Amino acid sequence: MKQYIQQNQERFFNELFSLLRIPSVSAQPEHKGDIERCANRLVELLLEAGAESAKVYPTTGNPVVFARKDVDPKAETILVYGHYDVQPVDPIELWKTPPFEPEIRDGAIYGRGANDDKGQLFMHLKAFEFLNSKGLLKYNVKFIFEGEEEIGSPSLAKWCQENRELLACNIILVSDTTMIGESVPSINVGMRGLAYLNVTVQGPNKDLHSGHFGGAILNPINTLCKMIGSLIDEHGRITVKGFYDKVVNLTEQERAMFARAPFNLEEYKKHIGIEEVSGEEGFSTLERTGIRPCLDVCGIWGGYTGQGAKTVLPSVAHAKVSMRLVPNQDPKEISKLFEEHFKAIAPKGVKVTVEALEGGSGFLIPVSSKGYKAAEKAIEDVYGIKPVPSRGGGSIAILANMQQILGADPLLMGFGLERDTIHSPNESYLLSQLFKGMESIVGFYLNY
Amino acid sequence: MKQYIQQNQERFFNELFSLLRIPSVSAQPEHKGDIERCANRLVELLLEAGAESAKVYPTTGNPVVFARKDVDPKAETILVYGHYDVQPVDPIELWKTPPFEPEIRDGAIYGRGANDDKGQLFMHLKAFEFLNSKGLLKYNVKFIFEGEEEIGSPSLAKWCQENRELLACNIILVSDTTMIGESVPSINVGMRGLAYLNVTVQGPNKDLHSGHFGGAILNPINTLCKMIGSLIDEHGRITVKGFYDKVVNLTEQERAMFARAPFNLEEYKKHIGIEEVSGEEGFSTLERTGIRPCLDVCGIWGGYTGQGAKTVLPSVAHAKVSMRLVPNQDPKEISKLFEEHFKAIAPKGVKVTVEALEGGSGFLIPVSSKGYKAAEKAIEDVYGIKPVPSRGGGSIAILANMQQILGADPLLMGFGLERDTIHSPNESYLLSQLFKGMESIVGFYLNY
Repeated sequence: MKQYIQQNQERFFNELFSLLRIPSVSAQPEHKGDIERCANRLVELLLEAGAESAKVYPTTGNPVVFARKDVDPKAETILVYGHYDVQPVDPIELWKTPPFEPEIRDGAIYGRGANDDKGQLFMHLKAFEFLNSKGLLKYNVKFIFEGEEEIGSPSLAKWCQENRELLACNIILVSDTTMIGESVPSINVGMRGLAYLNVTVQGPNKDLHSGHFGGAILNPINTLCKMIGSLIDEHGRITVKGFYDKVVNLTEQERAMFARAPFNLEEYKKHIGIEEVSGEEGFSTLERTGIRPCLDVCGIWGGYTGQGAKTVLPSVAHAKVSMRLVPNQDPKEISKLFEEHFKAIAPKGVKVTVEALEGGSGFLIPVSSKGYKAAEKAIEDVYGIKPVPSRGGGSIAILANMQQILGADPLLMGFGLERDTIHSPNESYLLSQLFKGMESIVGFYLNY
Repeated sequence: MKQYIQQNQERFFNELFSLLRIPSVSAQPEHKGDIERCANRLVELLLEAGAESAKVYPTTGNPVVFARKDVDPKAETILVYGHYDVQPVDPIELWKTPPFEPEIRDGAIYGRGANDDKGQLFMHLKAFEFLNSKGLLKYNVKFIFEGEEEIGSPSLAKWCQENRELLACNIILVSDTTMIGESVPSINVGMRGLAYLNVTVQGPNKDLHSGHFGGAILNPINTLCKMIGSLIDEHGRITVKGFYDKVVNLTEQERAMFARAPFNLEEYKKHIGIEEVSGEEGFSTLERTGIRPCLDVCGIWGGYTGQGAKTVLPSVAHAKVSMRLVPNQDPKEISKLFEEHFKAIAPKGVKVTVEALEGGSGFLIPVSSKGYKAAEKAIEDVYGIKPVPSRGGGSIAILANMQQILGADPLLMGFGLERDTIHSPNESYLLSQLFKGMESIVGFYLNY
């Protein structure tokens, strides 16, 4: 594969960049047309790579791209999952180059989606192309690329349910996660779930003069702040009633295994520019993101946010609340607990609304599985180091659903690195990881 | 004056509308040209109304309009203060008609500045025009109209200091406040001061993926919320250390006088659409806005505020904090106390910055003064009811400075009503109040 990459590098870049140039932002309805364009471009690339058939399927939301290549009805089937939608780009002013004009500098591709997930799904296209062209494909391969991952895959579970025979497979192969480091390859054996909600605190029926009314009525911003401020206590624990009820605590042995993953706290702090980490008491930083749930406000707004001093007592304040969940916490149940709690702590004099936006369960993958073993060997062959099992803090909402619907375990071979700053300005993907990823995926097919 | 208004009503509207059509928003630099246009238009109107001289004076900020008419060097001099700048218009979508296209409906003028303060200062132009044209002017009159009131008059104190001889006067007459009601005319005998600050909480040096980092580091929005939430305690008291040290408590007798002002709590709540009032324990609603200080967040923003669910752990969060102060609380001192307190409560792991934007002291006016007596009689003659002394919750930052620099007391003859929703969408000014205001001002000149 190494040689094949060298020979075809120029074409690979052209193909990947053609995907990256399409602003397929799923959170923003004005990009609906770009979503369609991106799905169609993927069909072209899949057919060029050797798929027997590739098609855009409508769903109740954004379309799904499905493709397949059958080599032997008796062989096992590998289903490759990826997503072609991307996160919004703001704050746009912090991008060094425009997010949808990809460029290579300092050994990395920069652009929205360079890693998440266009860059990572592209590795599968090229690994497949190589195996197919060389006659090395021993398994049937199916591809499912969705366009709603960044908004929580609201339509995909239903579509998978309706098309479960089409999707039938033995393993779900996914590259949409990170490794601990280039010199510490790892395979993700678990992800957190997600519950995401919009909350609104409404005070007076219109914006008021802060001098005439200030001090006599509840200010919705102050009130929202007080309510949010109370959601995490002085021990870093989430105060939502019942929130931890179903959290499974790890054994000391499991925690000890977890603690073996290399981690340099000083580098971690330096990398993101903070003086001190913070979180739930009694847990390490890796545990806090890997095996413990958390609550973060992803956005807040209300009142006057322009230049200068407008003295207004605003009518309404908003926030977006994300809760990362661990396996066994049900996002629907947690959203309901949150809503009940948030309404219960609202003082009289304001109206509170809570709207659940997306959710997905966490999951765990056994390290003893055939898939894990094949990936472990493939990565060790490419990196020269045996990968460690790790648990990622992020969420791929749909995977727990697919696991349940299709009866197949996902396998998370992710090649991103923290330095790639996915979801942030200047998202990037190291060329070395892009290429090692392709090699590792080829290795996986050969070892499986 | 009543007859004069009837005869000239059409022209009055044309003149006032020519001011209202100019978007002289002082908080937004892009309106610099409109500020200039508005100042020039006022010069024209002042000269047409009979001023001997009227001129635009540059300051270190927005220009001041000054005009005068001297009738007798031995007579007292009345200085009329007003401001021609207006508040920003957002949320623009809530306006029924465009803010800078004034129109009359249901007996009121609608538009930004219809009341605050273009409508109210216009009453003085027309009262002056009437007195002058009828040969009834017994006092020297000076006008000072500034263009920075809505941003805290940052340049005017210096300009007043440099031009104190030009401005020399015996009383400062101001119409920039409200009455309790049309059937309960009142004269404002005190206003609150103001300290206004921008605060910023900075966490990581860039936006991060909320899954990868959530739970392990301080989220600046959650942190800002917790900090803001702690600024007012469960008794409605502001927790900033030293905040109340210089607040003068009213005697029981003073509070009893204050309590005589008519106030209907149910109507108040219904008018602004809230179920319950809230504030400092042990004080009535009118006391909370009239004689007690308060703290309100006027705006807050951070993270993702667009549609849908972006899972980001943001780098930074911002808020605009307004504190209304009572006489004897120094805004500079309070801003400093706030900054010290806010930095002291910041947890390790975030950086906090506090920037003071504007400030102004509160003040009190004696009801026994010659000016108050003249205004009281004038309003009683027009409304048929003796006005009650009241204390307004708002602030006119510059008046305490002018009182000190010029050695003359302000007199606040305001004709706004709460229904006018100044600073909010659909600002308006009742025609009945506009005309009664003109009559009352004429009466003041004749009674003084």
